[in-house]
Amino acid sequence: MSCVFCAIVGGDAPAVRIYEDDDYLAFLDIRPIVRGHTLVVPKKHTVDLTDTPPSTLADLIRIGQRIGLAARDSELKADGCNIAVNDGKAAFQSVFHIHLHVAPRHAGDKLSFAKGLVIRRDPDREATGRILRDALAELDVKE
Amino acid sequence: MSCVFCAIVGGDAPAVRIYEDDDYLAFLDIRPIVRGHTLVVPKKHTVDLTDTPPSTLADLIRIGQRIGLAARDSELKADGCNIAVNDGKAAFQSVFHIHLHVAPRHAGDKLSFAKGLVIRRDPDREATGRILRDALAELDVKE
Repeated sequence: MSCVFCAIVGGDAPAVRIYEDDDYLAFLDIRPIVRGHTLVVPKKHTVDLTDTPPSTLADLIRIGQRIGLAARDSELKADGCNIAVNDGKAAFQSVFHIHLHVAPRHAGDKLSFAKGLVIRRDPDREATGRILRDALAELDVKE
Repeated sequence: MSCVFCAIVGGDAPAVRIYEDDDYLAFLDIRPIVRGHTLVVPKKHTVDLTDTPPSTLADLIRIGQRIGLAARDSELKADGCNIAVNDGKAAFQSVFHIHLHVAPRHAGDKLSFAKGLVIRRDPDREATGRILRDALAELDVKE
């Protein structure tokens, strides 16, 4: 048993946390393609689409939507986002604990997106985390 | 009003249909990145993450999961799939009626996946549609 996402969930590995509830955790991807690239995971370990309950996937995308909307409203000023689940090694899954990606996007960022696929770093992860947490809290206030 | 996905839903534009219920429709992407590349849409028109109810996103991913599992079990013999929602033009959304992509993947298909991003055609869409419909029906039988 050496699942890095289980270790993050259990507090045994570091992560910049964005959102947490009883069953789910969202944190910044340690190798972000774009600034604010976030992963949403169920705390209960499952691997991929073959063993993850449909209700869990439904929760993951609902949380992902809120993070995408928060990124739009935040200092990141995203114009949209990519939401993705890579199911299986063939589909570029690299950590075998199911996760949903949220990648904030900006108009005309195609080249920096392509560069991000190679470089994958955020020079100020703590600040990015703070921005997204604040934007999620703002969304809560609005509702 | 000239939404091509609303036209498909209404039967006014052709599509190879994979799945349909009262509120959702799944059909083959007319410009598939890989064989079996399917789009799942709500029949009720919404644009992106900003106006789509969370419950609709939840339904889309539940249907997408079933299609991904069907592709694994089908003649397509997928090893996994990519599930994605492109939210906004900045995120490569090209039809502004929200849709969830399901792209069946195979071990070692990275190069043909890259080629598919450029070529985007299926030499036998009708057969692909039949294969996925049959596999979904098989899933229903198993349950």
